[in-house]
Amino acid sequence: MATQKLKIGLLGCGTVGGGLVELIHKNSALIRQRCGIELSITRILVRDPVKERPGVDRALITTHPEKVINNGCDLVVELVGGIDPARKFIQRSLAGNKHVVTANKALLALDGYSLMKAAEIQKVRLGFEASVCGGIPIVRALRNGLVGNRIQGLAGILNGTCNYILTRMTEEDIDFNAALAGAQENGFAEADPALDIDGHDAAQKLKILAELAFNSRIDTANVKTDGIRHLTSADVRAARESGYVIKHVASAQVSGDSVAMRVAPVLLPNSHPLAGVREENNAVVVRGDAVGEMMFSGKGAGSLPSASAVLSDIVDIACHRTTTDTAPQGNLAAIQSNEAAARYLRFPVSNPSAIGPITTILERNGIAITSAAAVWGKNGSDAHQVRMLTNSCPDAVLETALGEVTRQAIGIAPAVSLSICA
Amino acid sequence: MATQKLKIGLLGCGTVGGGLVELIHKNSALIRQRCGIELSITRILVRDPVKERPGVDRALITTHPEKVINNGCDLVVELVGGIDPARKFIQRSLAGNKHVVTANKALLALDGYSLMKAAEIQKVRLGFEASVCGGIPIVRALRNGLVGNRIQGLAGILNGTCNYILTRMTEEDIDFNAALAGAQENGFAEADPALDIDGHDAAQKLKILAELAFNSRIDTANVKTDGIRHLTSADVRAARESGYVIKHVASAQVSGDSVAMRVAPVLLPNSHPLAGVREENNAVVVRGDAVGEMMFSGKGAGSLPSASAVLSDIVDIACHRTTTDTAPQGNLAAIQSNEAAARYLRFPVSNPSAIGPITTILERNGIAITSAAAVWGKNGSDAHQVRMLTNSCPDAVLETALGEVTRQAIGIAPAVSLSICA
Repeated sequence: MATQKLKIGLLGCGTVGGGLVELIHKNSALIRQRCGIELSITRILVRDPVKERPGVDRALITTHPEKVINNGCDLVVELVGGIDPARKFIQRSLAGNKHVVTANKALLALDGYSLMKAAEIQKVRLGFEASVCGGIPIVRALRNGLVGNRIQGLAGILNGTCNYILTRMTEEDIDFNAALAGAQENGFAEADPALDIDGHDAAQKLKILAELAFNSRIDTANVKTDGIRHLTSADVRAARESGYVIKHVASAQVSGDSVAMRVAPVLLPNSHPLAGVREENNAVVVRGDAVGEMMFSGKGAGSLPSASAVLSDIVDIACHRTTTDTAPQGNLAAIQSNEAAARYLRFPVSNPSAIGPITTILERNGIAITSAAAVWGKNGSDAHQVRMLTNSCPDAVLETALGEVTRQAIGIAPAVSLSICA
Repeated sequence: MATQKLKIGLLGCGTVGGGLVELIHKNSALIRQRCGIELSITRILVRDPVKERPGVDRALITTHPEKVINNGCDLVVELVGGIDPARKFIQRSLAGNKHVVTANKALLALDGYSLMKAAEIQKVRLGFEASVCGGIPIVRALRNGLVGNRIQGLAGILNGTCNYILTRMTEEDIDFNAALAGAQENGFAEADPALDIDGHDAAQKLKILAELAFNSRIDTANVKTDGIRHLTSADVRAARESGYVIKHVASAQVSGDSVAMRVAPVLLPNSHPLAGVREENNAVVVRGDAVGEMMFSGKGAGSLPSASAVLSDIVDIACHRTTTDTAPQGNLAAIQSNEAAARYLRFPVSNPSAIGPITTILERNGIAITSAAAVWGKNGSDAHQVRMLTNSCPDAVLETALGEVTRQAIGIAPAVSLSICA
């Protein structure tokens, strides 16, 4: 087999970029043997050229992006992240007939369509396996492996930070703040964790996956996105005592011309396929009309897992430079999933006897309570609480009832409400 | 986007072939829209031309294989199964420069190398996603998604019949024969179930996956293959009481130039990723040097899931007719995994007091027993039993000890010995 050369221009040499350099160094012989592809990085854009980068050839380093994009490479890997100037780099690369591989989920969620369209028009390829779920080949599965299926829905644990924190809260019975601090110490949460723990990172990934799965552009402006910072160890414990585990789940279900999307912590029964996904792992359950339900799980982030995804795109493009990839062709309206789910409710109250009036209000709204407990706070800093499990009720009915509780000043803070998945 | 036409010759119209015809009919518009590929089946080989086949165009039916292979099609789908004449059909198709897609695991396990080599030489493609784990895109994951990884090992639940039977035994506390009968009633076991329940089907799939993962031919003649027909509901119960679940697992772990392979029922702790895989589902855990551990799970068989895999190969070939696919390039010796595992042991005995001498023999061989129970049979037909859990001990040591128990005629039938996975 004749060896094909592929010259790679690399934009960014941080966590994933450094991992890519390491992985190509480590496994390029394997790839050459297996696929007949000879990979070489010809230029690397960095911000700080004097920083120590073990294993990186100093001669390749530059601070001028055009020296990477216009240096005769075949393919540009964008790993600088953020919206600008990453977008301009990708646009310029595509316009210059270079294939592009990126891990930039924020950019793809914001502007993926126009980038995919630009690639389609230039007849070059845009790979973004690394933008969702790190090393898990879920983009490839949706694009290729399940191509014969009409995808009906997907649901996933898409944020490793949330899953790590919830796992620690569940298995060590610690509170959110302690779990977050541990995650930060162990490198599973950023110093500013808002993007992860408030659900925005998962929402971006969900948009990318859903647009791919349903082959449609989706306006997600109205998708409700909840994070996990309002959860307490008492919530996790109460869930466990009823046979559930709390997981941060992003889901998208098609029906007709609309797609119900939701990003929120939910209670999953222990038998649910996502319930056993622990630590910083990610997982995606996909439902197709031919294959039924299928799950993919693994490390969703990190230097080498993400680099593995980037590398899989690089090799795929090297093997198959022609493309029939298209930008999403349809349009779907994202609707608030007005689901009728069973609920876990927690009301912070000044007096546990509030269980009486809260019960009355819920029942008057037609919500069937299956269990209720008044819990006295252990010390002054702990609020007293009322916790309940209810039968299935629609979002709208629940909102009305919770509004009444608030208006009557029975609770001293907003109630926490989590759906229970079947 | 210009539409490309792809003419398909179909050999075999049974469960998977019929599913493929149905799925192409159902989702070809979706595929045309998405990939610009127009699929048409131009000829279908069947054994019995008068049989009713709803949804199949009678005009396409033939009983002459050459009318399928030589009719100007671009791609031949082989779904007749078995070794011959399937092998000849594939060889002739490849020699005639046709791409081939097959679901034939028995043939690939026996002779995959020479077929892949023939495809490589003819520069055509041989797709076999459907040969392992039905709709789960595991072949694609190993070939493409994880291409940047050195795969270190894999382990999977590869046989849906075994998993269905073990799930029923575990969840309904019924014995093997009752569970098998239920599986046959529900279409999850063949009338002659030997290939499945004795582990040979899983062993074939393991060989295909391992050769792909390690890019090597593997002589598997010495791989030990155990099935599940010797397991009882008491085994399943004893495992559960100790926090384990019994699963039929096929595994392959590389070390140096050899690969330790094993197909056998084992005890998995409830926290193991494969422990939660229920019913007829399949799952594969893959460990790569970059991605770490990753799991894929879903329906491993059935008409539409398998047809989905066949269709994914067809579309992939239609999009990318050039190939850098190669036959396995290295060679690995499959060795008996001389593992040092903790064990579950069950000895059928004529008198439960045999627990004394059995304990003595095991301890004299250096095997540390962590718990032991003598169990009286409920009625005449039930043998009395001695059951034990041991600490880790090598296979060879265990065999010596079990040999002594046999020679001293303490047991009335061979002991059942299952490894406990960490």
